Parts: sequence; structure tokens; C-alpha cells
Amino acid sequence: MVRPDPYAIGLDRNPVNFVPLTPLSFLARTAEVYPERAAVIYGDRRYTWSHMLGRCRRLASALNAAGIGVGDTVAVMAANTPEMLEAHFGVPMSGAVLNALNVRLDARAIAFMLAHAEAKVLITDTEYSATVGQALALLDTRPLVIDIDDALGPGGERLGRIDYEAFLAGGDPDWDGRQPQDEWQAIALNYTSGTTGNPKGVVYHHRGAYLVALSNMIDWNMPRHSVYLWTLPLFHCNGWGFPWTLAANAGTSVCLRRVDPQRVLAAMREHRVTHYCGAPVVHAMLAYAPEEWKRGIEHRVHGLIGGAPPPVPVIEALQRMGFDITQIYGLTEVFGPAAVCAEQPEWQSLDAAALAERKGRQGVRYTAQEGMAVLDPATLQPVPRDGRTVGEIMFRCNMTMKGYLKNPQATAEAFAGGWFHSGDLAVVQPDGYVQIRDRSKDVIISGGENINSVEVEEVLYQHPAVRAAAVVACPDPKWGETPCAFVEVVEGAAVTEAELIGHCRARLAHFKAPKKIVIGALPKTATGKIQKFLLRERARAMAAEGDRRAGL
Amino acid sequence: MVRPDPYAIGLDRNPVNFVPLTPLSFLARTAEVYPERAAVIYGDRRYTWSHMLGRCRRLASALNAAGIGVGDTVAVMAANTPEMLEAHFGVPMSGAVLNALNVRLDARAIAFMLAHAEAKVLITDTEYSATVGQALALLDTRPLVIDIDDALGPGGERLGRIDYEAFLAGGDPDWDGRQPQDEWQAIALNYTSGTTGNPKGVVYHHRGAYLVALSNMIDWNMPRHSVYLWTLPLFHCNGWGFPWTLAANAGTSVCLRRVDPQRVLAAMREHRVTHYCGAPVVHAMLAYAPEEWKRGIEHRVHGLIGGAPPPVPVIEALQRMGFDITQIYGLTEVFGPAAVCAEQPEWQSLDAAALAERKGRQGVRYTAQEGMAVLDPATLQPVPRDGRTVGEIMFRCNMTMKGYLKNPQATAEAFAGGWFHSGDLAVVQPDGYVQIRDRSKDVIISGGENINSVEVEEVLYQHPAVRAAAVVACPDPKWGETPCAFVEVVEGAAVTEAELIGHCRARLAHFKAPKKIVIGALPKTATGKIQKFLLRERARAMAAEGDRRAGL
Repeated sequence: MVRPDPYAIGLDRNPVNFVPLTPLSFLARTAEVYPERAAVIYGDRRYTWSHMLGRCRRLASALNAAGIGVGDTVAVMAANTPEMLEAHFGVPMSGAVLNALNVRLDARAIAFMLAHAEAKVLITDTEYSATVGQALALLDTRPLVIDIDDALGPGGERLGRIDYEAFLAGGDPDWDGRQPQDEWQAIALNYTSGTTGNPKGVVYHHRGAYLVALSNMIDWNMPRHSVYLWTLPLFHCNGWGFPWTLAANAGTSVCLRRVDPQRVLAAMREHRVTHYCGAPVVHAMLAYAPEEWKRGIEHRVHGLIGGAPPPVPVIEALQRMGFDITQIYGLTEVFGPAAVCAEQPEWQSLDAAALAERKGRQGVRYTAQEGMAVLDPATLQPVPRDGRTVGEIMFRCNMTMKGYLKNPQATAEAFAGGWFHSGDLAVVQPDGYVQIRDRSKDVIISGGENINSVEVEEVLYQHPAVRAAAVVACPDPKWGETPCAFVEVVEGAAVTEAELIGHCRARLAHFKAPKKIVIGALPKTATGKIQKFLLRERARAMAAEGDRRAGL
Repeated sequence: MVRPDPYAIGLDRNPVNFVPLTPLSFLARTAEVYPERAAVIYGDRRYTWSHMLGRCRRLASALNAAGIGVGDTVAVMAANTPEMLEAHFGVPMSGAVLNALNVRLDARAIAFMLAHAEAKVLITDTEYSATVGQALALLDTRPLVIDIDDALGPGGERLGRIDYEAFLAGGDPDWDGRQPQDEWQAIALNYTSGTTGNPKGVVYHHRGAYLVALSNMIDWNMPRHSVYLWTLPLFHCNGWGFPWTLAANAGTSVCLRRVDPQRVLAAMREHRVTHYCGAPVVHAMLAYAPEEWKRGIEHRVHGLIGGAPPPVPVIEALQRMGFDITQIYGLTEVFGPAAVCAEQPEWQSLDAAALAERKGRQGVRYTAQEGMAVLDPATLQPVPRDGRTVGEIMFRCNMTMKGYLKNPQATAEAFAGGWFHSGDLAVVQPDGYVQIRDRSKDVIISGGENINSVEVEEVLYQHPAVRAAAVVACPDPKWGETPCAFVEVVEGAAVTEAELIGHCRARLAHFKAPKKIVIGALPKTATGKIQKFLLRERARAMAAEGDRRAGL
């Protein structure tokens, strides 16, 4: 006889004990508890949390009045300005899904995204009017276009019939907003740049956005009322979830249209910024900025570094400035940050170089990201913690996307075997910390030996003249592939290809040293990631040219 | 034509992007990331987080081997020892529900709970064997009894066939444990003491336990690796959720069998305790402890005060000691802490008395407690923020119980109108902070005028001789009711009833001053709450005696 479970009778979910998790509730609470605290600082503009709530409600109610609701997409093409922060609340509060567009994309890509997402509304900063105008011309159905005409921007053509402030003026600051009916409802859509084929639309859910917001605070040990500087593009995984984190934190966002190291450091000093995030390139800019720009920053600044494995010397240089640097790792499909190089208290006794080396690893799973493992992609068995065996980083649970919009096949492939496949190859150190060895497609196989491009890059970064380095495979008639390096040097440095090759050969197995080093500016994505696929093309072209000349 | 919602197609929950929320995952992560950090300190016993996980898994697997699983109740009658902390993970990891019993209850109450919860297992510290033995004798079905025979305890009879360590020895430290299939699954059962009738069994869910654990950290601004002293009984709302918080925090629990101010202060000094919680009586003990016991505590200590509105002078005295005190408010049905007197940064410029007064309010909702309001109980409309209009504090969402076990009527009453009714009467200050005026049943109505007993108590606390005060209604032939005070005085103080009445009349409208003041020890619950219902009975008895003598 099966006894009925007494805990399953008459104890159901109901509106008193259950409400869908959503980051919108953080805004409501902070506007209630800290109405007069600064939410946003941008040039001369200042919004308290009470203003912020009112503006988001205006946006949501005006969108609703324009017929926007659940299942609709609102695209935004904007810099890191208050409007973009407001969209992170106002759009989902209307029931719709926010699609933050990468402002460095070309018209064709933007047009693809607007069409694929069936965007009903496009909020667009006039700085990008040239691109956006071309994109709109490519569309069959034109969305409602709302212009952001920012006095601090460079100006540009207005493409819509209404500007953002006028649109807000038609909204209701006391409108209650729509809470999601289900925490699984979509909140945001983020297209991955993807090296081949069309971009894929990663769909985020309210539940994951709520959890990443809290995890950001907990995993970064972020105290209440932090002052956060927007050096990370808000279109990158929704600014790693930080618009929602700052609402939960009752913090202050300091907005910036673009990342210029002198202005970043000036903003840090002026507003006593405590926290900022960015790709390695952003941190490197600060680390290598002239000393006089850094003067007067005497408080503790905490930086999160992510988007690519950071060079250890950059971490070290920031530590010398008194910055406290933490690395996070993740990708669009897992809401941005999904792993953190959690500092162990005993690391504090390490010297600067050893500390920077520890912090240069990708680390362990985020508090709310239940599963992260380095698995053999064939067997899905974990690799040993030996710091040598390479596997693929995989994730699962609660901070993973719903899937790719209108792309069930890609979704199924990404989720094959019950794990999200990151495509990043890594080892696990004996202490359990994950360390990226390479993106799958970046492995260089030379004479049957695997070369981890990251290892070669790290050696290049050790050279004082090197600011940025990327190593890719170059087709080679003898060895199959050889490593080819592309290097950006620090201003004023005089260094030759031969010198850098010698530097590598002195520090690496000879087969790992680049055979060719190209010195010059590196192509980067909007988020500061070096575009290795472009470099791979250049390496292939150089090899073909070499072959042609050799008469092969 | 209704367009299908593209975000609702092919983007379902699956094991890659969804897992039930449970605080068990915090233990797993912390044991993984910080395996060697101290989880528990108790006398000479030290457990790292890795040990802790192993011991919890042993407990869970041994319970499973004993036939315990989903739908079963495991009761624990224990002091604040490591076993009780382990039960907070090991029991739910087995699939079962933890019922932490109040060790100060009598045999009849314990027997009622064991029978009502159908407890299959009882883990019981030998200190309580006399009571528990009698309780077991009252039961038709005896649970499996496991004795905790703590070398630091006073000793006592063993009631079971096996002791806790032997039971654990039969378990498997590598057992994977059962994750809840649904985050709505029950995790804990806590009986409310209740002033009348049988205790009600409040059922907690995994989802709420996860959220209260994170909220405790966020709302208390609690940094990672806090050192937490167990001055709050673990049987009180599962120690306000802090066993789970400390797992998320990777903190250290310092256990104590009983709250003795000298030992509490010694433990704070020895282990550099950063955080502790307790009822006002615990904090008062520390505030009024001899100066020599406090010497050598030079680090910052953060205290949460809850369970009853704290007297402002106690907060002030703790502030003078350099302690940082925050008040929380809640009750069993809302997972313990559900509101917090969130400090506003500008309060730092207030003088000590004004700061203590601000901190003496119950405050605002917890981050994860979506709804808290003071409503007119008849209309369910919010009262104005005037600091004067009294309403009932009500809660809803995510940190509210599933309901009362096997008591659908009480559940329906508690949830009537879509809110959980706390029974506490309060006003809302102009800044939105809730301030308790009285428990519903504590309102004293004298000559048609309402008297808030808290107001009278606060005046009594201002008298230097008063350590604790409680004011209740005394039936009165003329006025209906009059306020009657029961007062505990500080050691060595000589004060008379007349003097205290004069003190009140000098500071209150005369009708509010107690007509009668009884000096002596106050009856308190195990958690330090003054048992007003007993005092109400005494007041009634005194009145009847008075009437008899007056020949009425």
C-alpha cells in the first residue's frame, strides 16, 4: 500500500506563495526602498531610482499603447546611455523581448537580425543612422523607429517619426507594468556573432536573468550601493546581466558612450567608481595608460575581466595600480558570466606574478550556474584534474538559454547529451579550476603535435613590446599547419619579427614557436575580442601567396 | 489572425537549462570550490566544507538505507551542534523533510508534533532524553530513534538503538544524494508555538529556502567567508535560513550549545566572529554584559536582531560597543526573516539615539520576498504612509510557506484575500518603513481608546532599571481594559512599582500609563520571545482576585 505523501496534499502553489522570478522586481524594490539614490549618472543627466522606475514604466506603457506585448521583439541600437539601461526594464515590463544590437555590425547583419527577430520596434541612436538606414532599406516590413538623439553623441539623421523622449512623454510613469506570467518567459534575445553562417538568436528567460543578477553580486562579493562604470557594452549579453544586478544592488550606473582610457580613469576618479567590467583590451588600456591619467584614484576599484582569456601581465599591471581583478568566463548562451576565478583566501600570500597567474584561469562555476564541467566531447566523461588532459567546457542548468530562436536544429546540437557545449577546450587544474587551452577551432596541429595557441600567445605577451597577440594556424605543405602570430606592439616600441620569434623559441618547444609573425593592428569585435577568423583568413592568404611564389 | 509567439516554440525547459532551485546546491558548490575552508567549529571539532559534504551524504544515504525518502519526516531535537547543521542538508538530500523541534517544549507538545508529522526518524540529543522519553511513550508508532551523545553536553540516557556517529559510519560519503524533482518539494516543517490550540506545521519549499539563503546575504550585505556564531536556535525557522546561507557564503559556523553571554563574547574574540543573530534578549545580554567580558573584541561584529521588536536602548548600547546592528522582521510562515530595516546611507550622520530609533523599525521587504504591505484587514487596501494609521502586515510570494500541514482550513484563513496575514499590527512611516505597533491580540482598548502596548513598553525600557518589559490588557470593570505591565529589572536595581508608574505618566498620555506594574522574571519562549499570553492570563487572574476582594 502506498501511503499518500502528506506534503503533496493541499499545499499547492498559489499567488500568496509563488510569483515568477524576474529581475523586474529588483527595480520595483529598489525604487521603493532607495527612491532618492542615484541610479544613473550620464554627463549632466542624473536619475534617481525613483526616476528610473518612472521612465521605465513610461517606456513600457508607451510600448503597450503602440500595440507591443508578449511575443514581440523590441530591438535597440544604442551606446551605453541611460536609454539602453531603461530598455532592460521597460521592454520586458511591456511583456516584450529586448534585442540589444551590436552597434559595430554592418547593415546586412542588422537587417538580418531585425527580420529574423520580427522586431516590431527599433530604438536607435542617431550615431548609427547611416548603418541603420541601410538596414531598414533592406527590410520588407519596417518596424516602428524611435530615435535616441543624445546631446552627448556625434549627432546624425533621425530615421523615425518620434524621438525617445517624446515617446516616453506619452507613457504613464505610474503604469504598473506586466509581470511575466511564467518565469520561463523570454526577456532578451542576443545574437551571437558566429564565425560562419547566419547569427544565432540566443533567447534568455526571466528566471535566468534573476539568477545571474544575484550571482553577479555574490560571486563578485559586491557590496550594496556599488558605483559601476559602463565600460562593457550593454549589448554584450545584456551587459553580463549587470543592469539587473545594479537594480538588486541599489547601485549607481555611470554611463559612457565609448571607452577612452583617459575618460574612463577620469570618471573613476570623479564618481569614485568601485566596479567595472570589460574585455581584456579594456583593462589593458587602463593598465598601460599614462601615469598622470591615473593620479588621484585612491579608492579600491574592482574589475571583472572576461570575454577572452586575459593575458597574465595585464592582470599583474592592474594589481600594481591597486585594482582588484577577477576573471569571469562564459558565453552568450549561458547569460554571459557563468564561471568565475573565485579567489582563495590563501592566494593573498602569493607574490604578484603568482597571484596574477592564478587569477588568469577561468575558474569554477557561478553560484547559480548549477553545472560546469570539462568533458571528453565523445564520451561526456569528465577529464582528470591533471592540468594536461584537454576536454570541452560544458554547462547546464538555470543560467542556460532557452535555446536559439527559430533554430531547433542548432538548439538540439548545442544541448546534445544533456549539456550545453561551449566549444572551448580546457584542462582542469588539480585544485578544480578550469583553464582554457583553446577554442576548438584554434588548435594548431603541426607535424602531428597539438599546439595550444593560448600558450604561444602567453609567451608573446611576456615580451615588453607586445600589447596584444593572436596565434592562428597557417597551412603548411610540410607540417600541415604551423603557428602564425599577429602582434600589436605598444606605442613607440621598436621590435622586429626575428626578435619576437627568438623570444618564443627561447621559451617554447621549437615546434610551438611561430614561423611567421605579422606586426600591426589586430581586428577586434565590438566587445574587444580579437577576430581570429579574419586572422586565419589572412594566414591562409599569406600561405597561398608563398606557395604561388615557390611555384607549388 | 493570431500570430504564434516565436519565443514559445521549441524553447522549452529541459535538463540543460532548468534544474529545481534548492539550497543543497550551495553545499555542493562550496565543497567543490572551497573544500579546505572551515565549515563548522565546535569545541575541538573542526569540519571543512569537504568533511561537511561527506557527513551530510553519509546521513542522507544512511537515511535512505533505512527506508526514508520523499514524503517522510525526520525530526531532530538538538542543540546548536554540528549534527543539527548537517540535518539541514542530509535530511533533504535523502528526499525527506526536516522537522527541527523546539527543545524547550514539553513531552505532550513533542508527542503531538511527532505524531502529526508522522516522523519516521527522530534524531535526539541525550540532554533532552527525559522529555523525549516521555513523548515517545505517548506515541502509537515509535520512530527510528538516533541519539546524539555529545561529549560537550550534560549527558543523558540513550533512547535509541544507534547513536548518530555510528549511523553516519554506515552511510556513504560519496553518495550523490537526491536532488528534489521539483523546487516546490517540501524541505522543512516548523511548528508554530501558537497561543491557542494545537501547533500548526508550517511547510517550507526548496525554492523558498534557496531564495531566503541568498536574500540573507544580500539584505545583510554579508561578505563571503563570514564567521557566524550560532546564538540563534537552529530550530527557529531553520535558524532563519542561515545554515543554507552559510553554505552559499562559504562561511564558517561556530556552534554553541547554549547562549551564555560570557561564552558568546569569548567565542567572538577567539574565532573573530563577524556575524550573529538572535532575539532581543540575546543582544541585551551582550549589551549589558560586564565590560571585562567584552575586552579584546576589536573587529567589526554584525548582529541581526529579530523575533520581537527590539528595545531602542539595546540597539544603542550595542552600537556603543562598536557592533553594527540590523533589525529583521518576519515569522515562521515567511521563512523567518522577510523584512529588514535596510539602512539608508544618510543615517550614518545621525546621532546614536536617532540612529537606534531608525533601526528600531521593522523596515522593508527582503529582496526575495516580493510583496509586503500594511493593509486594512477589512478592505485589503494599503494604509497611508502617515506613521499613525494602523493596519496588518501582510506578505506574498516566493518566501511564503506552502501552507500548514494537514490543515487546509488554517491555510485558507492565513492566505485569505491573496495575502499571508501576519497578525501583526503596524504603521507605515512616511519613508515607507513599517513599524510594528502591536500584535493584533495585544491591542489594549481602554475607555474606547486604543493603546499600543509597544509604545508603553518603549517608555518603560527608557527607565535605567528596566531590563525587559511587557504590557498586556487587564480586564477592568470601569474602563474595559487597562494596561498592566510586567517588568524585569537589571540586577541590583532597586525600583518600586510607584516609581515606574510615575515614570510612565510623566511620558505618556495618562490613560496609557499602566495601572499596575508587576516586578519579576518574565516567562519567555525558547527563542527569547516574551510569552504575553501567559502574562495576559496572570493579568486576568489578578483582576478576578481584585474583583472578588472588592465584592463585585
